[in-house]
Amino acid sequence: MEKLKPRTLSGFMELLPAPQQKFERMLEILRKNFALYGFAPIDTPIIESAEILLAKGGGETEKQIYRFQKGDSDLALRFDHTVPLAKYVALHENELCFPFRRYAIGKVYRGERAQRGRFREFYQADIDIIGDGKLSVVNEAEIPSIIYKVFSEFGLKRFCISVNNRKILNGFYAMLGLTEKSGDIMRTVDKLDKIGPDKVRVILVEDIGLSEQDADEILRFIAIRGTNAEVLGRLEAYRGRDEAFDTGLDELTTVTKYLAAFGVPEENFAVDLTIARGLDYYTGTVYETRMLDHPEIGAICAGGRYDNLAEYYSDRSLPGVGVAIGLTRLFYVLDEQGMLNPDLLTAPADVLLLPMTDDFTAAVELATRFRNAGLRTQIYSEQKKFKAKMTYADKLGIPYVVFLGEDEIAQGVCSVKDLRTGQQVSLKPDEAVELIRKGISELNKGSVILEK
Amino acid sequence: MEKLKPRTLSGFMELLPAPQQKFERMLEILRKNFALYGFAPIDTPIIESAEILLAKGGGETEKQIYRFQKGDSDLALRFDHTVPLAKYVALHENELCFPFRRYAIGKVYRGERAQRGRFREFYQADIDIIGDGKLSVVNEAEIPSIIYKVFSEFGLKRFCISVNNRKILNGFYAMLGLTEKSGDIMRTVDKLDKIGPDKVRVILVEDIGLSEQDADEILRFIAIRGTNAEVLGRLEAYRGRDEAFDTGLDELTTVTKYLAAFGVPEENFAVDLTIARGLDYYTGTVYETRMLDHPEIGAICAGGRYDNLAEYYSDRSLPGVGVAIGLTRLFYVLDEQGMLNPDLLTAPADVLLLPMTDDFTAAVELATRFRNAGLRTQIYSEQKKFKAKMTYADKLGIPYVVFLGEDEIAQGVCSVKDLRTGQQVSLKPDEAVELIRKGISELNKGSVILEK
Repeated sequence: MEKLKPRTLSGFMELLPAPQQKFERMLEILRKNFALYGFAPIDTPIIESAEILLAKGGGETEKQIYRFQKGDSDLALRFDHTVPLAKYVALHENELCFPFRRYAIGKVYRGERAQRGRFREFYQADIDIIGDGKLSVVNEAEIPSIIYKVFSEFGLKRFCISVNNRKILNGFYAMLGLTEKSGDIMRTVDKLDKIGPDKVRVILVEDIGLSEQDADEILRFIAIRGTNAEVLGRLEAYRGRDEAFDTGLDELTTVTKYLAAFGVPEENFAVDLTIARGLDYYTGTVYETRMLDHPEIGAICAGGRYDNLAEYYSDRSLPGVGVAIGLTRLFYVLDEQGMLNPDLLTAPADVLLLPMTDDFTAAVELATRFRNAGLRTQIYSEQKKFKAKMTYADKLGIPYVVFLGEDEIAQGVCSVKDLRTGQQVSLKPDEAVELIRKGISELNKGSVILEK
Repeated sequence: MEKLKPRTLSGFMELLPAPQQKFERMLEILRKNFALYGFAPIDTPIIESAEILLAKGGGETEKQIYRFQKGDSDLALRFDHTVPLAKYVALHENELCFPFRRYAIGKVYRGERAQRGRFREFYQADIDIIGDGKLSVVNEAEIPSIIYKVFSEFGLKRFCISVNNRKILNGFYAMLGLTEKSGDIMRTVDKLDKIGPDKVRVILVEDIGLSEQDADEILRFIAIRGTNAEVLGRLEAYRGRDEAFDTGLDELTTVTKYLAAFGVPEENFAVDLTIARGLDYYTGTVYETRMLDHPEIGAICAGGRYDNLAEYYSDRSLPGVGVAIGLTRLFYVLDEQGMLNPDLLTAPADVLLLPMTDDFTAAVELATRFRNAGLRTQIYSEQKKFKAKMTYADKLGIPYVVFLGEDEIAQGVCSVKDLRTGQQVSLKPDEAVELIRKGISELNKGSVILEK
């Protein structure tokens, strides 16, 4: 028979078993922590009616969307978790309790131009808190504290959650009488890191048409740096000139205060007046998280406060706050940077059980005992040479091999070999469980990410 | 603004938070148990090249497939986990270790005619063991033992895993000189449950053209019933007449023996000569699992042994054995039958923390303490009347509410109210953790399925 060359589409991540175990570990950490903060998992379809998904319409996203006909239906694949959340909340608004806290971890689709590190199918992990009419600002501090918890548990230390407030930006531009130009200004300021303050100034004056004075004022404002207390202190100097600004400053002060109470160390979050996160969606607090040693990667997590989650589907005012982690890209980058812990236990089993008898009954019973004790156990039942069996355990990184022969069965013991130390001991089943469990618990202590 | 009516496509399951928690519980049980048996999670893309997915071509499946163009690419959504597994193994055959044990839990797509209980997007949970050239028959007993373990942990008791062997069937028809008609015969025999033996006999004689004698012989064969030992004993009477039959009988005897060793009670598995599972794929042991009190539902899990996993992509002989659970349909049916445990803890949090002060610092710190102790904790930070807050906890089924006011803070305690008993006690944080943890552990004892 003519064979078809097997292939996976480009832009689609498909991992080998060992890296997949690392990815799964990250998924577990996300699920566990999101649950600890009272978020409920919600699973919306990957396919929706195109009309629903594109209610907002227009923009870059629409070109990238996977859209197709099936029978009479105009269908599309979700490109984020926010639009499906808006639909979900609007559809079930009478059955949900608000504030509604949900998390979503799943694949989304964007037909990006194929290039290394760009994915067309990728995992996003989202948390959002949706209020009914109102939503307390405390939530805006809790969200980044969850991000801190999750990244820390991943093993990442050198990262910073930047926090800003759109009301401060809008208020500041209003003070200068530049509200109408604020979109253009923010887009320019956003390039500060890339092009530097001098070029930003040139664009502000020559392209956007600001006075030299206003341009300088803006550059002074976004140059405000220091500890969070220092930045907030310098912002106090602007108080009393614009209502939105004052509200934004109050919110930012509150968020900063509670972030500390939530246990986020000062080195992992920073008030940063240069971040704005898009122009039309966020209305208050905004976040961006970056890896300090890899600024070139950009934001690995972003989000903020919005006023109207479901404005295309519902009359109800549903303010919310949330963030999304681009998990597939993060994993790809960590791997590329050599930051995935090479010593992490990625074997599919803790124990490989080698029956040394023709009848496997005793081996099957021992395996059942191990499994009931929580040990991931594989019985090796193929007829191969001893060396091939040991090579199998070795290649997969299975830490323990247990031999069970006539002698062991007669004596009610089994032989446990630790493949890392080479030590072999003869133990009763309960003792074997104890020994292996301890060893595995040691091996599982490492984190997915290892910073150098 | 004109609003768009929010909707979810028909044939797509979208659960409210409480049932979603039950579904998640089932996913957890699957992941945990598959890992305990040494299976590695593998996550293949939902979108593949249509050429790859349809390599086998033809049949009912092709009509149902979601297939579309994106740019120049002819794409399709996976309709099961088996074809993507075949591609994966063929693509990575030099990087994988065999036997390769993998599990896959994820959504698959079939454009079925829309009707109640039929899904176009549904979860399948698959386990497969793939050998390189050979694969021991012990694996064929282990697979249904995992199914037993999983369904038992779901809370299902009244189910039966039926086991048969295709070599026995093929060998039996060969004995009668009916090999060429065996496909037609098996298709007819498959209808036994629905139309009864008399009508089966009529079809065999009149439509398929068997002699009266052969038809009777077949009906006698498939009527073999009894305990597993009895059925195997009666099959022994046919031994020596066909080589394939004898091999099949040996395999079935071995599988039956090890199934018992794996701890599967006799009442949960049965040798059943009427099951065949399709005609061209399976080559040895075949399985089907049914709910004893709901035969009308059909198989909730099925699979078997095959000889060539990746024949369309690789020259390598890759025999395997596996099963798939149709999870979305199972969940739907359980819900319809009222078999989902209504008392299961489905709240998004174990504790709702109500700060009774303007400043939330103490509440945030207590919440952090609870979370570090593993309690799923939500701080209720909205300004609402006390009654509204209690109603919120009640509606969500959150079992504990913790109050933290000036007095409590001053005394280093908090007030814990058990919403099920109404009891309220003032406790130190560590005592509160202990009390709540115990209560939650009690509440989590129930299983997802509750049989009446």
